[in-house]
Amino acid sequence: MVEKKIILIVCDGLSDRPVKELDMKTPLQAARKPAMDALARHGMSGTIDIIGPGIIPGSDTAHLALFGYDPYKVYTGRGPIEAAGAGIELGRGDVAFRCNFATVDKSFNVIDRRAGRIKSGTAELAKAITGMTIDGVSVVFREGSEHRGVLVLRGNGLDHRVSDVDPHREGKVLEAKALVPEAKKTAKVLNEFVRKSSKILSAHVVNKERVKNNLPPANVILPRGSGSIGELNPMGERYGLKCAAVAGVTLVKGICRMVGMDVPDIPGVTGGLDTDYKAKADAALRLIETHDFVFLNVKAGDIAGHDGDFRMKVRVVENIDMMLGLILKELHESVVIAITCDHSTPVAVKEHSADPVPLAISGGGTRVDGVRDFDEISAASGALGRIRGTDLMPILLGMADRAKKFGA
Amino acid sequence: MVEKKIILIVCDGLSDRPVKELDMKTPLQAARKPAMDALARHGMSGTIDIIGPGIIPGSDTAHLALFGYDPYKVYTGRGPIEAAGAGIELGRGDVAFRCNFATVDKSFNVIDRRAGRIKSGTAELAKAITGMTIDGVSVVFREGSEHRGVLVLRGNGLDHRVSDVDPHREGKVLEAKALVPEAKKTAKVLNEFVRKSSKILSAHVVNKERVKNNLPPANVILPRGSGSIGELNPMGERYGLKCAAVAGVTLVKGICRMVGMDVPDIPGVTGGLDTDYKAKADAALRLIETHDFVFLNVKAGDIAGHDGDFRMKVRVVENIDMMLGLILKELHESVVIAITCDHSTPVAVKEHSADPVPLAISGGGTRVDGVRDFDEISAASGALGRIRGTDLMPILLGMADRAKKFGA
Repeated sequence: MVEKKIILIVCDGLSDRPVKELDMKTPLQAARKPAMDALARHGMSGTIDIIGPGIIPGSDTAHLALFGYDPYKVYTGRGPIEAAGAGIELGRGDVAFRCNFATVDKSFNVIDRRAGRIKSGTAELAKAITGMTIDGVSVVFREGSEHRGVLVLRGNGLDHRVSDVDPHREGKVLEAKALVPEAKKTAKVLNEFVRKSSKILSAHVVNKERVKNNLPPANVILPRGSGSIGELNPMGERYGLKCAAVAGVTLVKGICRMVGMDVPDIPGVTGGLDTDYKAKADAALRLIETHDFVFLNVKAGDIAGHDGDFRMKVRVVENIDMMLGLILKELHESVVIAITCDHSTPVAVKEHSADPVPLAISGGGTRVDGVRDFDEISAASGALGRIRGTDLMPILLGMADRAKKFGA
Repeated sequence: MVEKKIILIVCDGLSDRPVKELDMKTPLQAARKPAMDALARHGMSGTIDIIGPGIIPGSDTAHLALFGYDPYKVYTGRGPIEAAGAGIELGRGDVAFRCNFATVDKSFNVIDRRAGRIKSGTAELAKAITGMTIDGVSVVFREGSEHRGVLVLRGNGLDHRVSDVDPHREGKVLEAKALVPEAKKTAKVLNEFVRKSSKILSAHVVNKERVKNNLPPANVILPRGSGSIGELNPMGERYGLKCAAVAGVTLVKGICRMVGMDVPDIPGVTGGLDTDYKAKADAALRLIETHDFVFLNVKAGDIAGHDGDFRMKVRVVENIDMMLGLILKELHESVVIAITCDHSTPVAVKEHSADPVPLAISGGGTRVDGVRDFDEISAASGALGRIRGTDLMPILLGMADRAKKFGA
């Protein structure tokens, strides 16, 4: 039995619904995409309920499921994923939060949840509040893009089950509450951190400068999405695969790091509409030489969906197809290659939807069904049928002759 | 509601992948098989993940699943299945092992794990070591084919969670170890049995004769695959069906006995490539007169797959089709008849694979879909969809109007 390598391409949010302006075709149906269609034609197709029928996946839970982890078991809030994305390695027992830099008035009322979408100076602000110790718990704080940041509490006796400090709208900054008795200490430390850091931030030169320029000061941190890392057996151990990821967007990179993939930073790969598709293809082809499994995420389709921009979405399909073409040209039969989406982001909805996503798998001697196009409807008549997100990795491992036998 | 009878035909390992030498057709697609196609055409098709997507089934776990038993719950090692196959009825608390007759030197090093694939004399050797009592535990030992045998320990306070004595390669005979404290007694009795039996075997006339003829003596028993029988409610009680099996191969016969089927020995039915297909058809037709459910296994496809012999596999398809034709000719609408496989054994892989298997069900007034051929790809577009192995029995019972109602 010859074990094959695997490439998995996830087109973020590319899956859609019929678009009036496209003669009731989906962007995938309307676009010219010879590479995607070739992949479908030489392999098997199907559709995926990423989490389950009628459940709208987040990009985080979706990727966990596609990598074979039951998000209901391992997902405990977005904090840990953001932390991993920011390069903070979480240990067992650490509690992580997504945070905003925000603006409060003197009575601790939030008047701007994003501190005027602050663009610069957050690195200095973060440096001023990270490293403190509260009740023996050490505090790690790191800035993210724009007004975003990550907070990690590290110490004994912590528990992630606390309520958000972020009021999620203008109004009073909330006191974190323990949702279970075990989380009392965590809530106390968290509230203390919010008060202490607010004092430090208010006095910081970056904010003095902002006030002078009539900009709202980033004078409070609003933590939310508390979580700890669950029982996450790395993909390497779990599947016996050396795994790497090509991704631009922080959240996805974070998940890839959490499941133990190598996630190199690749110049030109941005996670935006301006991402360098050729650089992505090159990186995937380079990484599959040294790894057994290469995952490639393209965020642009999701952005076009959120913007409700069907023209842009068609263009994204064609860009991804060009990228896929570059990959297919270099691959041989001994690589199993799959293309799918993490969720649908229909341009008519401008949000994620629960619609199943198309899937095509080819290579490695796999069976070939009669499906000739890669799109939401064609895929639904394929031989893979309708599967769940967590079924994908086992199916890929089976096709790559890397599955485990149960019985005699 | 008229309850119908059910015939289930399982083509062991017949399911495959595209074969280059067959113009990228699978053996099922390449063969002439009018009876199988007629069954598909007059009924419904689908595919089965026998255990689950991406899990390679053993023949044992696969048959358990096809009979409706969750192998994760009832499967505790191959020992009990081999014991049942050898006709030893296991009771609650008995612990069973697969064994090899092997050859050891004076320092108890295994020098031939199969005692030169000993062909004769094992019945006498088995008789010399069965029936002893160790620490109040009675020992049953029975020879199997060639170098194989089955050991059953019967008594109070036994537990199957012990490690193998068989080193699985040349080298020192291992001491069985208790994997849990409850299994200490079992390990002790097992090790004592291996020592005692080795002394008896060494002194036995069969072995003296072998040594004289320069053949390796079968002077040790190497137990492995320890297990006890789980909560296995017989099919008769569970489904209200009188069940019978037509099978040649010991492992499958063992499972059929474990789930309470009548398993007559049928002359000419061998479990090999030389099996008498007409005898199988005749036996099934005879048994369906007196039983509600007849199961029929044909092993030959699996053998051709393991041998990587695509020509033989095509021939096996055509032989099974002939057999199916004989059955269909005699059956009337009041019998629900299903054909499927226990797993794929692609000739390109020469091992079981995780690929789903095709299924067709007809008769008993069932619905009819548009599928016209019985093969891996055609079946995938059928009205039964993609199901799990443990779904098959409930579906068959439903079609036979033997299902239970839940609610008012």
